[in-house]
Amino acid sequence: MSTDLHPLSADNVTTWDHEADVVVAGYGIAGVSASIEAARAGADVLVLERTGGWGGAASLSGGIVYLGGGTPLQKALGFEDTPENMKAFMLAALGPGADEAKITEYCKGSVEHYEWLVDNGVVFKESFWGEPGWEIPGDDGLMYSGGENSAPFNEIATPAPRGHVPQMADKRTGEKGGGYMLMRPLSQAAESLGVRAEYDMRVQRLIVDVDGRVVGLAAKQYGEDVHIRARRGVVLATGSFAYNKEMVASYAPQLMGRPGAAIEEHDGRAIRMAQALGADLAHMDATEVAFFGDPQLMARGILVDGRGQRYVPEDTYPGRIGQLTLLKNDNRAYLIIDEKSYEEGCAATSSTPFFRFRPKWVAETVAELESDMELPAGTLQATVEVYNRHAENGNDPVLGKKSEWTKPIGSPIAALDLRNCTAGFTLGGLRTSVDSEVLHVSGDPIPGLFAAGRCTSGVCAWGYASGTSLGDGSFFGRRAGLSAAKGS
Amino acid sequence: MSTDLHPLSADNVTTWDHEADVVVAGYGIAGVSASIEAARAGADVLVLERTGGWGGAASLSGGIVYLGGGTPLQKALGFEDTPENMKAFMLAALGPGADEAKITEYCKGSVEHYEWLVDNGVVFKESFWGEPGWEIPGDDGLMYSGGENSAPFNEIATPAPRGHVPQMADKRTGEKGGGYMLMRPLSQAAESLGVRAEYDMRVQRLIVDVDGRVVGLAAKQYGEDVHIRARRGVVLATGSFAYNKEMVASYAPQLMGRPGAAIEEHDGRAIRMAQALGADLAHMDATEVAFFGDPQLMARGILVDGRGQRYVPEDTYPGRIGQLTLLKNDNRAYLIIDEKSYEEGCAATSSTPFFRFRPKWVAETVAELESDMELPAGTLQATVEVYNRHAENGNDPVLGKKSEWTKPIGSPIAALDLRNCTAGFTLGGLRTSVDSEVLHVSGDPIPGLFAAGRCTSGVCAWGYASGTSLGDGSFFGRRAGLSAAKGS
Repeated sequence: MSTDLHPLSADNVTTWDHEADVVVAGYGIAGVSASIEAARAGADVLVLERTGGWGGAASLSGGIVYLGGGTPLQKALGFEDTPENMKAFMLAALGPGADEAKITEYCKGSVEHYEWLVDNGVVFKESFWGEPGWEIPGDDGLMYSGGENSAPFNEIATPAPRGHVPQMADKRTGEKGGGYMLMRPLSQAAESLGVRAEYDMRVQRLIVDVDGRVVGLAAKQYGEDVHIRARRGVVLATGSFAYNKEMVASYAPQLMGRPGAAIEEHDGRAIRMAQALGADLAHMDATEVAFFGDPQLMARGILVDGRGQRYVPEDTYPGRIGQLTLLKNDNRAYLIIDEKSYEEGCAATSSTPFFRFRPKWVAETVAELESDMELPAGTLQATVEVYNRHAENGNDPVLGKKSEWTKPIGSPIAALDLRNCTAGFTLGGLRTSVDSEVLHVSGDPIPGLFAAGRCTSGVCAWGYASGTSLGDGSFFGRRAGLSAAKGS
Repeated sequence: MSTDLHPLSADNVTTWDHEADVVVAGYGIAGVSASIEAARAGADVLVLERTGGWGGAASLSGGIVYLGGGTPLQKALGFEDTPENMKAFMLAALGPGADEAKITEYCKGSVEHYEWLVDNGVVFKESFWGEPGWEIPGDDGLMYSGGENSAPFNEIATPAPRGHVPQMADKRTGEKGGGYMLMRPLSQAAESLGVRAEYDMRVQRLIVDVDGRVVGLAAKQYGEDVHIRARRGVVLATGSFAYNKEMVASYAPQLMGRPGAAIEEHDGRAIRMAQALGADLAHMDATEVAFFGDPQLMARGILVDGRGQRYVPEDTYPGRIGQLTLLKNDNRAYLIIDEKSYEEGCAATSSTPFFRFRPKWVAETVAELESDMELPAGTLQATVEVYNRHAENGNDPVLGKKSEWTKPIGSPIAALDLRNCTAGFTLGGLRTSVDSEVLHVSGDPIPGLFAAGRCTSGVCAWGYASGTSLGDGSFFGRRAGLSAAKGS
């Protein structure tokens, strides 16, 4: 199979196998959102999908969409939020270097985007889930998904839950996750608008005219070369590069050797295709980091690094725990917890009971535990002593864990081994405008080329909140479809 | 002034203002090394330099060149080293994701590269400087410059000093730094080989022929457009992007707001020009981080972060302290040191006496100091207690500081405020082959285009050692010149 990435001149294309006004590569969240909006704007839309059906990584995900600024769901459940408050959180939590222009638009348009999802058939149940967790275990519609109510962010912006989760119980098709319940209505909406799709379509390179305008794509379908003409524009929406080993080594090496929290189709191809045209990139080192510790247990103990020192408020968003563990603390973490709290945590409803590891070490005293764990003498004892001293009063001046989770650690005491318990996906990609135009290194848009989703750098630069990928993928996916339909 | 970065078609060039076999952009360490080798290979060489003379950032630097594997200087001073040992250190210290192919070649060729520098007139004095420090204060020729003899690297490879410093006392021109004493003989060698140079030459974009081969550059000279033809090849050697605010925000945002440890000509232009042709990048987030603490003081105290916890062996390479402080510990550091050690440190010869800040807080007890610093009660006390407990026996099981620097901290005790005491430059750039060909995102070389120095990603991915920039700039600069002269 040809792996040539160089742009192909339209002059060299003798036959166009398919043709549409707007051609979308990838039928995940960004692709379906682009398709709907392009079709509504009057464009004839064709989606090229590598697998055998719509869905992408979105369909297999938990389905959390990061929305706020006062959505009807937030209001109905009694949470106050404004676009400004949402922006203050996102700038603090998702940087350094977060794209302020994108975040501003995203926050301003978030309520409208919620309505758009609902209008397209996505159902959010009017109920809130307030436990520490990765995802909602039942079918509730709203949760904290980025550490908004934890230190340090709860002092930077008024906490508001923004993880909006499509209702999951699906009587017709059996038990399906939130991501499926997001993608199914959207793909149905696209279909009802006449959006066409071609499957087993692996995009290879972009086709350009003499002026450098993107006018189509070359792809492989069932092993054959095919050429697809885009009369108005091409939208790239093929996902991250988490499964491209060479790109990970060059751009996000901290993920080397970690499992990819994505799907293997995420091979970065569209990023490469656009780079070959001089497209700029942004934040290629940024990564989401999943952490295999049960938040119900973590909130009830203390997490220490390889030196026996605390480094994160244990009641925060577990993705933040993952980032701080992998990227700043050598991927070494231990959860220190007493027997009573361990049992309490195990009794609590959890979204991830499979992350409820058994203690590796158990002891009567901290000194014994420290010795069993082969930590330098005195280190863990010092950490627990300082923690307990303030926990007596429900305070955590070191890291700001909330009072409700801050209790002295008693005896017997255990440690869970959470070293190398991370996985992740890449957040960097093509640099795009707020209208989802792919930007050339000169700063100008590349004519005819648009992109959204995880093949672009979205609202996250370094930090992450669950729901921002489906969030910016759908939000800027819509804009990619609109811009492409205009043929700007 | 035109800021168009798009490649210019040679068909559109009516007049070639200058012409040479090999055209080199940038007259710093990579440019001069490329020029010498291209000229020796029989090429007519023209250097385009943006300022009024040769030098670049190299000339203003400390002049450390990272060399090893058993150089004559290492041997003469009694240090054993092999290419394999050097490689083991570099892979451990400069990653994750360090380019093993480049490091392998670099280590294998290091002794020969030392000879080449000496043959071209660079003088290394046969004397070793073994104090903790950034640079050599006198005119000694060899030092540790990457933490080779500190934890954790002293257990990964046999420690060997590899910072080779050109002798600095220059009777003819007055007091000059090591960087100048590196660049002067090399630029003289280039001149004696007939290398020509044009100054005030700001490169703008690459010129390509119909087949996509790079055949020249467009530049601005004294405000006028000029076109320079390269019959065999173009070498990009224009330095980092540390002074391009937009690129720093997109690629290395952790440096935003920090002073650039580079020169303002480091605007990333050559990276952009090559990206416009589809050139690949690597490790754009990687950064050198300078730290404004005097190593003679740091080794004698303990460094703690904003939570009063230690995070780095204080006797290691100060650039590593800088990286860990800025990139992993929120740029917050305090040096805790007792009066006796502070005075000892101040009495010691230092390369950076201007980093010898006065204590901000002084107290009789750790508890008082902790309170004065407004650290959470118990935190600093716990840290000092654990440190002292092991220091009584000259041990530091927490971070592995060497025995010679590990002594209990007594009273009176002081803290130096080293928050926000960092600066840096970028290490990422164009992805190149071991023969310094600029690689397209497809993995193939871009015909006619070569690069070296800090506009490329060299031997460093995340970590850094002083001397690796002048080291890989000169080493792979030579290869860029050779490859370009071949016209491959």
